[in-house]
Amino acid sequence: MTGPASDRPGPIVPATLDGWSLLHQAFRLRWPALRALSPSARTSLASGLARSLELSAGDGATAFVQLLGHKGDLLLIHARRDFDALSQAQLHVASSSLFEYLEPTFSYVSIVELGMYDMTGKLYGELAGRGLEAGTDAFEHAFAEEMAAQARRVGSRLFLDLPQRRHVCFYPMDKRRGEAKNWYSAPFDDRAAMMREHGHIGRKYAGKVTQIISGSIGFDDWEWGVDLFADDPAVFKQLIYEMRFDRASADYAEFGDFAVGLQFSRAELGTLLDGRTPALQPA
Amino acid sequence: MTGPASDRPGPIVPATLDGWSLLHQAFRLRWPALRALSPSARTSLASGLARSLELSAGDGATAFVQLLGHKGDLLLIHARRDFDALSQAQLHVASSSLFEYLEPTFSYVSIVELGMYDMTGKLYGELAGRGLEAGTDAFEHAFAEEMAAQARRVGSRLFLDLPQRRHVCFYPMDKRRGEAKNWYSAPFDDRAAMMREHGHIGRKYAGKVTQIISGSIGFDDWEWGVDLFADDPAVFKQLIYEMRFDRASADYAEFGDFAVGLQFSRAELGTLLDGRTPALQPA
Amino acid sequence: MTGPASDRPGPIVPATLDGWSLLHQAFRLRWPALRALSPSARTSLASGLARSLELSAGDGATAFVQLLGHKGDLLLIHARRDFDALSQAQLHVASSSLFEYLEPTFSYVSIVELGMYDMTGKLYGELAGRGLEAGTDAFEHAFAEEMAAQARRVGSRLFLDLPQRRHVCFYPMDKRRGEAKNWYSAPFDDRAAMMREHGHIGRKYAGKVTQIISGSIGFDDWEWGVDLFADDPAVFKQLIYEMRFDRASADYAEFGDFAVGLQFSRAELGTLLDGRTPALQPA
Amino acid sequence: MTGPASDRPGPIVPATLDGWSLLHQAFRLRWPALRALSPSARTSLASGLARSLELSAGDGATAFVQLLGHKGDLLLIHARRDFDALSQAQLHVASSSLFEYLEPTFSYVSIVELGMYDMTGKLYGELAGRGLEAGTDAFEHAFAEEMAAQARRVGSRLFLDLPQRRHVCFYPMDKRRGEAKNWYSAPFDDRAAMMREHGHIGRKYAGKVTQIISGSIGFDDWEWGVDLFADDPAVFKQLIYEMRFDRASADYAEFGDFAVGLQFSRAELGTLLDGRTPALQPA
Amino acid sequence: MTGPASDRPGPIVPATLDGWSLLHQAFRLRWPALRALSPSARTSLASGLARSLELSAGDGATAFVQLLGHKGDLLLIHARRDFDALSQAQLHVASSSLFEYLEPTFSYVSIVELGMYDMTGKLYGELAGRGLEAGTDAFEHAFAEEMAAQARRVGSRLFLDLPQRRHVCFYPMDKRRGEAKNWYSAPFDDRAAMMREHGHIGRKYAGKVTQIISGSIGFDDWEWGVDLFADDPAVFKQLIYEMRFDRASADYAEFGDFAVGLQFSRAELGTLLDGRTPALQPA
Repeated sequence: MTGPASDRPGPIVPATLDGWSLLHQAFRLRWPALRALSPSARTSLASGLARSLELSAGDGATAFVQLLGHKGDLLLIHARRDFDALSQAQLHVASSSLFEYLEPTFSYVSIVELGMYDMTGKLYGELAGRGLEAGTDAFEHAFAEEMAAQARRVGSRLFLDLPQRRHVCFYPMDKRRGEAKNWYSAPFDDRAAMMREHGHIGRKYAGKVTQIISGSIGFDDWEWGVDLFADDPAVFKQLIYEMRFDRASADYAEFGDFAVGLQFSRAELGTLLDGRTPALQPA
Repeated sequence: MTGPASDRPGPIVPATLDGWSLLHQAFRLRWPALRALSPSARTSLASGLARSLELSAGDGATAFVQLLGHKGDLLLIHARRDFDALSQAQLHVASSSLFEYLEPTFSYVSIVELGMYDMTGKLYGELAGRGLEAGTDAFEHAFAEEMAAQARRVGSRLFLDLPQRRHVCFYPMDKRRGEAKNWYSAPFDDRAAMMREHGHIGRKYAGKVTQIISGSIGFDDWEWGVDLFADDPAVFKQLIYEMRFDRASADYAEFGDFAVGLQFSRAELGTLLDGRTPALQPA
Repeated sequence: MTGPASDRPGPIVPATLDGWSLLHQAFRLRWPALRALSPSARTSLASGLARSLELSAGDGATAFVQLLGHKGDLLLIHARRDFDALSQAQLHVASSSLFEYLEPTFSYVSIVELGMYDMTGKLYGELAGRGLEAGTDAFEHAFAEEMAAQARRVGSRLFLDLPQRRHVCFYPMDKRRGEAKNWYSAPFDDRAAMMREHGHIGRKYAGKVTQIISGSIGFDDWEWGVDLFADDPAVFKQLIYEMRFDRASADYAEFGDFAVGLQFSRAELGTLLDGRTPALQPA
Repeated sequence: MTGPASDRPGPIVPATLDGWSLLHQAFRLRWPALRALSPSARTSLASGLARSLELSAGDGATAFVQLLGHKGDLLLIHARRDFDALSQAQLHVASSSLFEYLEPTFSYVSIVELGMYDMTGKLYGELAGRGLEAGTDAFEHAFAEEMAAQARRVGSRLFLDLPQRRHVCFYPMDKRRGEAKNWYSAPFDDRAAMMREHGHIGRKYAGKVTQIISGSIGFDDWEWGVDLFADDPAVFKQLIYEMRFDRASADYAEFGDFAVGLQFSRAELGTLLDGRTPALQPA
Repeated sequence: MTGPASDRPGPIVPATLDGWSLLHQAFRLRWPALRALSPSARTSLASGLARSLELSAGDGATAFVQLLGHKGDLLLIHARRDFDALSQAQLHVASSSLFEYLEPTFSYVSIVELGMYDMTGKLYGELAGRGLEAGTDAFEHAFAEEMAAQARRVGSRLFLDLPQRRHVCFYPMDKRRGEAKNWYSAPFDDRAAMMREHGHIGRKYAGKVTQIISGSIGFDDWEWGVDLFADDPAVFKQLIYEMRFDRASADYAEFGDFAVGLQFSRAELGTLLDGRTPALQPA
């Protein structure tokens, strides 16, 4: 056991940088009722929702995913500038003509997040080198300035285009706070080292998988949401299985429910409503 | 392991002061049925409920929140003088014309509570200094008198106006009673120290977040409810993440489900029913 | 770790005395459908059920409680002589005209129980003093005779009138059988001491709270049900919070979901159906 | 910690003998719809199902139980020769005219099982005494022969008549595989001793309770199902409470949900549909 | 505790080979609505779905299972070449005329998987013998080549015909990541030895049970899905009970819910809809 957080020198909490506000919404489709409609009525329902989400997205976007299994048929991933814009996306869906044919099954609220273990450690060292003492206003101010500069440098990762890959995997997770294994009372340097090892594995899959990590502490039931995008779904299995053996996951990860599906183009929503597998058109 | 509670000198149970009785009620809206109504019918449903809650609130109030995600569309937070008044609020909602369009999803019953670790410790010392022995009638009487005086001093925090900030986060929590880490068998002074450290972090966010803690032991499934109010929702994530590393949270906190949303003015309920994001007007 | 139960001298299992058979039944009311009825139709639904429960209760009774929150609007607590009579109460509700407007949410089956730790220990000593050996027929016979006499002495606590207090709190609980903290392998004398300490706290609240403990091993999902009755609901919070620090609770109690509400007179059921807070008339 | 199973001498897995295939099916009744029928229509629904189950039961049987509480109103316990016959029983219920008035709540699939700890240990000794080595074909053959002979001797316990007692208690259970307390890595002799102690307590209640243990590994969510039958339901509470202190239960038992109710005669199903407590006629 | 994964020599993650993509879909049947149809209408619903699944299966197949109990009446197991083909199978079911009579209860998404503990260990040794160092491109390339050759050798086990046996048992499982017992931080050689012991038990049942293991990390809520096929369902109980005592299961296995049922021929779906037990015709 380590001592109380306040007795440990150096940083405790890693800085984070925030990007898109995200809302995941999953629905089952009411198939018999959809089937009773004419093809043109289904087309109209699909294009009505697709258009209103496109028009209201601003510089954000909504991804469309056909889910496999009973957890839902349709997953919408809304990326927006703030929670007001998420609220609008949610209300566009709710007040669309299609909503009568949708049965909500799950959702997730989060904000795209870059965790900055290494940068936090390095900055603490640099600022100490400049004679600044952690906890003082001067330190906090200098630290915030550096983080803002960093946010500008990595802006494209915080407000990224949603990856155009066929397969999507979503799951939420926590860091364990067990009675014996407790991430939040592990020393900062240990946590940083574990995150570094974790990142090494991720980088081995760099060309095959694109990931989006979002933070959901205070917003939803788990601490983080993970979205993975890949051309070949078997890569999800390989990557997560391999990671399960690293210390950050083996000892400290707790996982929620997984959802997997096929991303498709907004224009193909009508194809799904018709009962045919929708395609992902080249962007 | 500490010995049985009764063998430890000094206080064991911190005194608490009670304020508003609270009832949180979350609902999904039946959107297709609402959509089938005329705009003026929706306006009438909205103003009917808003007015009846206002008229019956006494010196209490009801906050209106649009929730994000599938847990609900509308959260009502009723603050009232007692459980009879909460019962009336609940029945006003249930017997409103709008209720037909509401699907209850979750609720929470609690009483606004100020935990008094430091004050309890100090009072024990003072009364002992006056020669009073804990457990005696004289001690209990003097203690109760001091707490009543304190309740008068902090009355505005017990019966506060609900904060007029755009974003609201609600979650319930417990203190862990694990087989190895057990809050309720930790010594009073350790608990008081942990709560002090926890409070220090909270105070760093003083201008950015307003919190309301309510006690729900005996009323609902968790020990406490927490409501946070902020202009910027990212602050919820920062604050709770930072606190997760303090000992009170890292070792002893257990969290229920989180709900997050946008507070709006009572007069804007009709806007929500129309499918548009409702605004929070300056009070 | 203690040895196996059969190697320990003295009593292992405390004797218990049984009283009323209890059935708790919680329901949501179908408000829009009730609202569509005429006031006199609601009155008739209410009086029909109230009368049939009264007529069939024998020397038992049914308490009526308006619940707060989404777990239910109405809680019925049936106290009857045996399970056949509980079955009749359940069928009276199910076949009433009101049942169409009730949606069952939870229930609990149990038997009022007095746990006899101290009496069991004392009796073991006395019978040993008389030369009787535990486990022999003579011992068992003498023990059973003493318990029957005791049951006659405390009959009014086993078959009590349901307390006429405004607020009611119900929750089920278990004694923990953890891998490290296990109530059922703790020595009898330790358990007896912990129950004694637990009882002392209860007695401090004697004038303010009336409790009914019922056993549900073999009947429902938890080992015991607890009903508390008080004029001031804040007392539930104080009492249970204070008890949470005693060893029996801190180390060994596990709690199910809590329900809280306002008790009202049978004749006031129609008031509730009308959407107004029903009163508890003096008995 | 014991070594891996394969390093321990002597038996590891106790032999079991199998009897009836069991399907428990619980339903809520749709009371308002039943009430809207004429008495003779209810009689016809009841006798239709009762007759088809009787005709198709072969030498098996179906027990009828009125449940207490919201988990269901009617529990059917089908005992049949094999899973094909269970499938037929399930389809007889599903395609009966009554099914429209039934709402499935829970079910359980299992096979009546006698665990043979002592017999297994004894046989291992005997066969070793005959010079047979465990794991050899000769050993396995001789062992199987002895078990088949034993199955013939206890056939009436494997294919028993369902006990004609008024009260029925059903619950599923597991043996714990905790990180510290793990039934499946305890030595065979310890497990055998614990099961012997457990059996001693059961035998004290021999005249008052009849039990049926069924195995459900591979069939349902728990490892075993337990049905208890008694004239006085308080005996369920006494028996299971007393057992909870023996080592097999205190350290290793994990329990699912409990259901309790009143057994009644097949011919009384119509009485239940009429909303009156059905009787158990002498067989 | 072992050190971090990256400090251990030799392999950490066992290689796996992938086969069919699998989608399990369970449904309750809406019996009263089916019963209201004419026999020929039911026949037509059945043959419509059966035919569309057959036509679209490619070289894959769909197994039909009648489930026992309330978790569902019908389980479909779709084996397809990839997730696009699974999506098509799901949409064929959803847009069939029968779907109106189906109520989804659970599902499972996975990919048939052969775990290669021994092969992985052997290959590491061989490649080291050839002077290749783990982690280098040359090593990874040689390893991947050997695995591809192995995949060709065991192709018929990866893309197998679904076993034509009457009884089917399905359950998902995890390897435990407990605070004390953690599969993912156990040394590779220990895990390999435990899997070998586990396999030995399986092989004792070789003639009686056919198993299909599928991996679902990244696809569904558990790490693996297990399908067992047998003529005699009691064999499921014996096999899984015996395995529960091996170390891989006793210490490290965590099980989800079990489903059990009777496999039947595609042409017999109409028999099930008629309320009669469908047969499994010889292939």
